[in-house]
Amino acid sequence: MKKLIACLNFLFVGMCLHAQEPVDYVDPFIGTTNFGTCNPGAVCPNGLMSVVPFNVMGSADNKYDKDARWWSTPYDYTNSYFTGLSHVNLSGVGCPELGSLLLMPTTGELDVDYHHYGSKYEKETASPGYYSLQLTKYNVKVEATSTLRTGLIRFTFPKGKSHILMNLGEGLTNESGAYLRRVNDREIEGMKLLGTFCYNPQAVFPIYFVMRINKAPQQTGYWKFQRKMNGIEAEWDQDNGKYKLYTQYDRDLAGDDIGAWFTFDTEDNEQIEVAVGVSFVSMENARQNLEVEQHGAGFDEIHASARKQWNDDLSRITVEGGTKAQKTVFYTALYHTLIHPNILQDVNGEYPAMETGETKTTKNNRYTVYSLWDTYRNLHQLMTLVYPERQIDMVRTMIDMYKEHGWLPKWELYGRETLTMEGDPSLPVIVDTWMKGLRDFDMETAYEAMRKSATLPGKDNLMRPDNDDYMSKGYVPLREQFDNSVSHALEYYIADYALYTLAKSLGKKADANLFYNRSMGYKHYYCKEFGTFRPILPDGTFYSPFDPLQGQNFEPSPGFHEGNSWNYTFYVPHDVKGLARLMGGQKKFVDKLQMVFDKGYYNPANEPDIAYPYLFSYFKGEEWRTQKTVRELLAKYFTPKPDGIPGNDDAGTMSAWAVFSMMGLYPDCPGVPEYTLTDPTFDRVTIRLNPEFYGKDQLVIEKKGNGSAEGYIQKIELGGKKTGYRIHHNDLVKAGTLTFYK
Amino acid sequence: MKKLIACLNFLFVGMCLHAQEPVDYVDPFIGTTNFGTCNPGAVCPNGLMSVVPFNVMGSADNKYDKDARWWSTPYDYTNSYFTGLSHVNLSGVGCPELGSLLLMPTTGELDVDYHHYGSKYEKETASPGYYSLQLTKYNVKVEATSTLRTGLIRFTFPKGKSHILMNLGEGLTNESGAYLRRVNDREIEGMKLLGTFCYNPQAVFPIYFVMRINKAPQQTGYWKFQRKMNGIEAEWDQDNGKYKLYTQYDRDLAGDDIGAWFTFDTEDNEQIEVAVGVSFVSMENARQNLEVEQHGAGFDEIHASARKQWNDDLSRITVEGGTKAQKTVFYTALYHTLIHPNILQDVNGEYPAMETGETKTTKNNRYTVYSLWDTYRNLHQLMTLVYPERQIDMVRTMIDMYKEHGWLPKWELYGRETLTMEGDPSLPVIVDTWMKGLRDFDMETAYEAMRKSATLPGKDNLMRPDNDDYMSKGYVPLREQFDNSVSHALEYYIADYALYTLAKSLGKKADANLFYNRSMGYKHYYCKEFGTFRPILPDGTFYSPFDPLQGQNFEPSPGFHEGNSWNYTFYVPHDVKGLARLMGGQKKFVDKLQMVFDKGYYNPANEPDIAYPYLFSYFKGEEWRTQKTVRELLAKYFTPKPDGIPGNDDAGTMSAWAVFSMMGLYPDCPGVPEYTLTDPTFDRVTIRLNPEFYGKDQLVIEKKGNGSAEGYIQKIELGGKKTGYRIHHNDLVKAGTLTFYK
Repeated sequence: MKKLIACLNFLFVGMCLHAQEPVDYVDPFIGTTNFGTCNPGAVCPNGLMSVVPFNVMGSADNKYDKDARWWSTPYDYTNSYFTGLSHVNLSGVGCPELGSLLLMPTTGELDVDYHHYGSKYEKETASPGYYSLQLTKYNVKVEATSTLRTGLIRFTFPKGKSHILMNLGEGLTNESGAYLRRVNDREIEGMKLLGTFCYNPQAVFPIYFVMRINKAPQQTGYWKFQRKMNGIEAEWDQDNGKYKLYTQYDRDLAGDDIGAWFTFDTEDNEQIEVAVGVSFVSMENARQNLEVEQHGAGFDEIHASARKQWNDDLSRITVEGGTKAQKTVFYTALYHTLIHPNILQDVNGEYPAMETGETKTTKNNRYTVYSLWDTYRNLHQLMTLVYPERQIDMVRTMIDMYKEHGWLPKWELYGRETLTMEGDPSLPVIVDTWMKGLRDFDMETAYEAMRKSATLPGKDNLMRPDNDDYMSKGYVPLREQFDNSVSHALEYYIADYALYTLAKSLGKKADANLFYNRSMGYKHYYCKEFGTFRPILPDGTFYSPFDPLQGQNFEPSPGFHEGNSWNYTFYVPHDVKGLARLMGGQKKFVDKLQMVFDKGYYNPANEPDIAYPYLFSYFKGEEWRTQKTVRELLAKYFTPKPDGIPGNDDAGTMSAWAVFSMMGLYPDCPGVPEYTLTDPTFDRVTIRLNPEFYGKDQLVIEKKGNGSAEGYIQKIELGGKKTGYRIHHNDLVKAGTLTFYK
Repeated sequence: MKKLIACLNFLFVGMCLHAQEPVDYVDPFIGTTNFGTCNPGAVCPNGLMSVVPFNVMGSADNKYDKDARWWSTPYDYTNSYFTGLSHVNLSGVGCPELGSLLLMPTTGELDVDYHHYGSKYEKETASPGYYSLQLTKYNVKVEATSTLRTGLIRFTFPKGKSHILMNLGEGLTNESGAYLRRVNDREIEGMKLLGTFCYNPQAVFPIYFVMRINKAPQQTGYWKFQRKMNGIEAEWDQDNGKYKLYTQYDRDLAGDDIGAWFTFDTEDNEQIEVAVGVSFVSMENARQNLEVEQHGAGFDEIHASARKQWNDDLSRITVEGGTKAQKTVFYTALYHTLIHPNILQDVNGEYPAMETGETKTTKNNRYTVYSLWDTYRNLHQLMTLVYPERQIDMVRTMIDMYKEHGWLPKWELYGRETLTMEGDPSLPVIVDTWMKGLRDFDMETAYEAMRKSATLPGKDNLMRPDNDDYMSKGYVPLREQFDNSVSHALEYYIADYALYTLAKSLGKKADANLFYNRSMGYKHYYCKEFGTFRPILPDGTFYSPFDPLQGQNFEPSPGFHEGNSWNYTFYVPHDVKGLARLMGGQKKFVDKLQMVFDKGYYNPANEPDIAYPYLFSYFKGEEWRTQKTVRELLAKYFTPKPDGIPGNDDAGTMSAWAVFSMMGLYPDCPGVPEYTLTDPTFDRVTIRLNPEFYGKDQLVIEKKGNGSAEGYIQKIELGGKKTGYRIHHNDLVKAGTLTFYK
């Protein structure tokens, strides 16, 4: 009786408070088209596993096909042909990878060719830790949920002959090759090759899996696409150039394009659950992950747990005021910042060491998917403020990577350094974390690692291959047309400035001096003629002919990576005032920056210029421009719609920009523990601080006064004391309140 | 000093007696062209492992290419382009299978495409347990030897950059797909799919291997042929449609077409040894096989052991007299009968159970590769006489297969029933063995198994799918043009006659009566009009139009499999005299049989008619025809040349025909423990009998008198007592001497 009451109570609370919990504001469909590359799949916070609808292959009805263009997400909202649920995926990333272990239900005659077995769908729904749709071709309901390292899928079949297919031949990854073997009638285990991220041919790694079905099938088997034979021989092999069905073989299978099928006689509305455990260490670990995390629980229990984990995490920030749409945007953005980096280690603590793949054991969480050229800008700063226990493990992980591989990460993916994008982004992340008081990590080794990439000659330097030029000249000259030399150097300046502040605080005066001087080298690139940065040739002269607009829309541009000179010219966050002086003073700086926005030179869809709106606030009297610009950008580019992220979410970086901006503060200089303030979206934001790190258990940001939404901040108080538009992290968390008066 | 003398003594004996040991007469190149499908590779008697030169792919210079026609051997003597050594092969078989794990040495720039890396060769030599050649392209010497379950390869490299390649993508098998992983710098392990024997798509099975090199390489890596991408995407993947080299990845690899490479800086004449262990159970067992059988021994030691095993086995028969060429033919034929069936179990006794692949453990040798439609005719009879300890394990294995799978084997291949060819050939093998006094096996189960296939309705009968017709009508009517119905029935008659003799000896009168009556059903097929067997239609009338010659040269023929009516009409070995009566008496029978030879209707290259020459001797006064014909066939078709076997050796069956024929006796009726006698090739043949089975330890067959080589036998004595031209096995081994007077 007590149980029943508790249950009714739960239902009641569930119904009444439904729209009031943070988790309910999340709309996982936001960012799932317009190249946001987010997906609506089921995932837990920072979970290794995500179970995502795969709808980017097999049909001309799809607008986007993974093989027809550069394509980096398993799902696009505007597509319509579902070919399974993919297990372990990237969110908001711009290169094709992962998105494999495709699990598909079908009915009727067995067909293992995804060109045929895919289906249109309806009744698509998603919430944190849950995804569902109804396949119109088969009248099968598909539901997915997950734990940290496992997926649980529930299919509701109609009466008749039903099949469950596990396709190991396809996926978003461009690497192929898989191995599987039958454990028993209801369980298979195997391995699939992943990798070639951003078409890097050597960044290859294996994923191991176990798949377990909660009902014994009537029949099972494998398939493998048979290589095309030629000539006479082709006539004898009935499966030549086709998907061969293995009906009488059930031992080990390997090949480029293989899969397993399970056939059932189902009753109407019969539900069958499929559990998938993964590991990047071994099949044994995949099984252990499955057994420990699902421990025989059913779909509803696992789903409730995933939802609770999300609500607990999202509840670290409570917002009041603002529209429902704004809350949806905010909590969905926060949700997107809690997907990567994700944990890598198995329940037993084992993980594949960086680059070697050697099995190692960790006590703290081992993270992976470090898209650092993106996330060093704001995502790690968000973690430091709101989820410091995670950020410190992320830093520990980075230092462990150095211990294993000799290098801090640049773009790490499941133990492989993909060397995507440029710079030395681990440095500002580690320094930023340290300077904000999170210090329980091996700084001695971290300093060694940072100094190594800052000082090693180019030929031996994985992070800074052009370090010889940089160290000797103070800049990187353009040696090849599209060598991104200016972008490289701008990143090194920021990294070196971070290293300077750290060296200074550690009393390493010589280092501090060295790195400070280097960090000011950006001035070499300033060209008075154009008022912008401009590539420099090896002979020291500027590159000609020069067009500061060349490089828009991700076109190639000499010296600049994924952008043009305008997207980079203000990117000296560590010396904004110095840059202003170089440009002729505050007014010229502000006017030029305003022009960037007015003329549409600002690219909201990529990282180099995303801190631009905050630069106005470095100058007294100009802070309103920050507030106005941020407000406009939020309204225009961050909406509660599938296209509501301006471009690749970049592993949560765009979303972190929105989260900070909507709370009224932004860490515009990575490595410098400060925030620039702006008009928050909400009346009141309460951040539950982790007292273990910050002493206090909450930080309240609130708006007071009667100013209109369009109005500007009149006064700011930190802990009741007036403050300016840039505040130190330590002051903020110590104060506990940040009050904006409008 | 003692050691040196022993060594010198060995050398001396080796030199002086070199041409006198049986092993020295073997020429492994015999039967390696003219579709003999034997090979010159290194193998131990009845060994699982054979290491064979693979020269049937990659070059238009080759006359025969494995993919350009029906092709079933890894090697042809007339080809010239070597692409590696294949591990585990079939000898004398007519369907493509096995012949994989291709190990190749190269030098210079690394190239993993076999179209490029293959080489011409010279200085090719082979002897039992040893094979060698010199690659002209690379100036690399290749030597191979083997143990029962492992291969050992020695490469002698020139100075410079040298490579060892293990290609898992190609092979004689038409199945593809492999998996490998690095154990350490010098060792890899993996699995490759084999199967689709005779293009049977479901007869698939895995082979596991470990490969260990005795020198650490400078560099190692993998390759995988990359699936062809289309459109824009193809431009981004630099390895699209090519062999991709994995230089920085060394964990698990899987795919259709993969391999591993090892690069060395070699000194001039530097030798590197590669050991390859295999298992059909697991990689762990492959490693254990390697460690137990090679126990760190070097090439010369392993080679000496292999040679000794062969000499011991071949020495079971000593021949005196005859030419060197005849001895070469004889011992090479005996060598070919000792290759299949080969052992399957690992050193720990484990093997994959029939059809299920479940790991089981055996105490006796577990055999595999049962090409029974061939070998039931004479090879098992040879084993029974000369190697009875092997024959009884072969029978035990067959009964175990029944216990595991529910059926005795028909054409068993590494645990899969391929159902190649027809009939119920296990029955005569088991009965023949039993009737010859080898009885230490589970006859109760064997009888159950034999009775099952003889009596189960066709729809449930794997061995006799047309058993309903056969049981009800006494023959199998032609229901489809090429259903081989007459061939099927002729095999059933023989099997049922064997079962009759067994039932009778066991006192099972009803069974004896049933099976005897069935075995006489061959008479239905006799067509007086043509004087031959002729297919019968379901309505009981003979098939028309009928041409008894249709089916020559392996062309399809209604009712007959791999032959025409003439090749089958005399194939009633259990009732030769009854057949003669049917044909109108002895004279008509003999005249017709003689005509078959005179007109060239006899096919020496396939099994159905190979006992024909012996049938003359059933009739008094006609025995000279047997002697003449056998002598002529031996001289014409069995020569010490690469084309010295008339067609597929059929897992040793053609060779067993030669061995028996050259010794002067032949078991012309499988299941009936008798031999028909003929003029032996040699003056004296001494068979070392196994006293455990036969009491006596030798059997001497000798020729006496002054008759010319062309002359005929005047008198025969068995144990000093006159005998006729057909003798019982038990009388033979009891007598201990068989003397021919010419």
